[in-house]
Amino acid sequence: MTIARRDLILSAAALAIGAGSAAAFGATRPDRKLGYAIVGLGSYGLDVIIPQFANCTHSRLAAVVSGDPVKARRVAAAHGLPASGIYSYETFDSIRDNPDVDIVYVCLPNALHAAYTIRAAKAGKHVLCEKPMAVSVAECEAMIAACKAANRKLMIGYRCHFEAYNLEAMRLARTGAAGKIRYVRSEHGFVQRDPAKWRLKRALSGGGSLMDMGIYSLQAARYMIGEEPIAVTARESTDRRDPRFTEVEDMLDWTLEFPSGAMAGCQSMYSANQNRILLMGDAGRIELEPATRYDGNQMWVGKDGRERAVLPPGGPGKTQFAGQLDHLATCVSSGREPIVSGEEGLRDMRIVEAIYRSAREGRTIRLDGRA
Amino acid sequence: MTIARRDLILSAAALAIGAGSAAAFGATRPDRKLGYAIVGLGSYGLDVIIPQFANCTHSRLAAVVSGDPVKARRVAAAHGLPASGIYSYETFDSIRDNPDVDIVYVCLPNALHAAYTIRAAKAGKHVLCEKPMAVSVAECEAMIAACKAANRKLMIGYRCHFEAYNLEAMRLARTGAAGKIRYVRSEHGFVQRDPAKWRLKRALSGGGSLMDMGIYSLQAARYMIGEEPIAVTARESTDRRDPRFTEVEDMLDWTLEFPSGAMAGCQSMYSANQNRILLMGDAGRIELEPATRYDGNQMWVGKDGRERAVLPPGGPGKTQFAGQLDHLATCVSSGREPIVSGEEGLRDMRIVEAIYRSAREGRTIRLDGRA
Repeated sequence: MTIARRDLILSAAALAIGAGSAAAFGATRPDRKLGYAIVGLGSYGLDVIIPQFANCTHSRLAAVVSGDPVKARRVAAAHGLPASGIYSYETFDSIRDNPDVDIVYVCLPNALHAAYTIRAAKAGKHVLCEKPMAVSVAECEAMIAACKAANRKLMIGYRCHFEAYNLEAMRLARTGAAGKIRYVRSEHGFVQRDPAKWRLKRALSGGGSLMDMGIYSLQAARYMIGEEPIAVTARESTDRRDPRFTEVEDMLDWTLEFPSGAMAGCQSMYSANQNRILLMGDAGRIELEPATRYDGNQMWVGKDGRERAVLPPGGPGKTQFAGQLDHLATCVSSGREPIVSGEEGLRDMRIVEAIYRSAREGRTIRLDGRA
Repeated sequence: MTIARRDLILSAAALAIGAGSAAAFGATRPDRKLGYAIVGLGSYGLDVIIPQFANCTHSRLAAVVSGDPVKARRVAAAHGLPASGIYSYETFDSIRDNPDVDIVYVCLPNALHAAYTIRAAKAGKHVLCEKPMAVSVAECEAMIAACKAANRKLMIGYRCHFEAYNLEAMRLARTGAAGKIRYVRSEHGFVQRDPAKWRLKRALSGGGSLMDMGIYSLQAARYMIGEEPIAVTARESTDRRDPRFTEVEDMLDWTLEFPSGAMAGCQSMYSANQNRILLMGDAGRIELEPATRYDGNQMWVGKDGRERAVLPPGGPGKTQFAGQLDHLATCVSSGREPIVSGEEGLRDMRIVEAIYRSAREGRTIRLDGRA
């Protein structure tokens, strides 16, 4: 009586799983791998990013920056770094004298992104900065100006632009696999349980779920539709009596309008688990769920409930993390601009400010300068 | 490498598929089945509703009302109705003299609901009226007043209140199967291809996708959360150059806020197919897709991508159509109020007017009288 909604059909391409996709990023092959300094040895820098250098072709770990000297020495030792590759936040600026470091990757809480990006640029280093780029438009503009003044590259850690399923969904959308895309739905959230987390402290995070998972919802709406939104309308719901949410928002729901008439319905929250992107077209749909996880993402393409599981050509390929690390390395080597530059982070931050303003003022905020 | 997201687990209850669920509606057993007159022999009345009397315990077809005498005679003959059970719109008011008709079921275009409901009440008949109840709050109020003055029952054709999956999802939500419900997502749409359809003519429909599939999105948000919304924020996107959309809207996206802090994100459209309800709680989720179809609905319950397909206890049971026909019949026999009364239709219509107003004015509209 009940039929599994989604047939699992593995394409022939699935046989190619594991094939590297570095070529997709137009990599040049420099004589040496570029050296990264990881700023911030929290769980993301330490557990997610640093292990990924093993999957990189053009990048290697060259230094660590931490407020915890014991942890810094332990990580350095584990990865064969010399003592000259260990920095504290106090000694960070002396990284200018370390020729082994080409790129500084800022993995700090949001409110510290601007300061460390600017210090890195002033130290003559290229910068990869985690998303959200910063906590205000003004900070983003200062970061772009600092990198420009130092003639250094600035890239934002929008890893989904290097994630095989998201790339394939973008390609399918552009080539009309679902017809004309009319609506994109993007939902990201998780149950944030620990009231002590820095992400719940406004001084460090700059905001709640929007500044965390919400950035994925916003980014996905933009890269899936492939246009810039012209208006945003947002609503917030937060239980301020909940000890987790005394400083930042729990839940935001927002609509983006695009020049073609397409709309996006986005959502972020800290009180339920959700990770999904859906593209609705007039001839079918493309669905990713989970959509933007570190791994294990899945995609379905089809129409009217008869959707096929689809694997990207070549399979999941190189990890998204190694992809972004190597992308900036090859951009530095070749002089090209990163596909997710500081300007891209600034675009999101302008919309983030408009989302908060719309929710606060209870009205639609235009993004195209019209009244 | 890829795992089907949703395991299909048929519960033991599945073995009970087909068991009737009339008892759930607290049916009394009158000596005779109550007689329905179907007003409007369009595809819904003719192809969807009339065949369902075969599944009814307390209801039977007693008369038809149509502007097409040939069609009316054909349908009457096919169902063994006497010539006295055939009405035109001109002769409709004489139905007061037909003791074989207890209930009039209005299956006409939206803009005719009020007139025929009021005429039926004045003819001394109880009324089942299709949704949306009417095209304005004022019409809804007039319909309620007319039925009250005539001491007749008024029920709105919200069939999902008799649909086993939706009922089970409501029960699961209320009993905490997904924890505290924080967000409900409800998406309903289809590709409306024929520009000649009455649903695209404002004089008959009163509006576009909101007055069609959007009513399902709105209703689901309310019955799944089990509260009345206090604010609505809506946006519309319609290509007015598209010949289908010269008079009515294509796409609406709206957020509802509820007293508990739960939110609902709803959507309706005429340019992509979608039929889905998702309840997100802090301990899991309940998903229906398709959610509100005539049949073939499905439900998944679980968390974090490991969801189980769930069948309602007793299986899909009696059809939702027979369920609603028999519900009103038993309400009439027992003197009880229908669970989806005219007041319920009026509540939706107040929100519908607020959705249109919010989209038009670009601001949040309060529904609770606050500024």
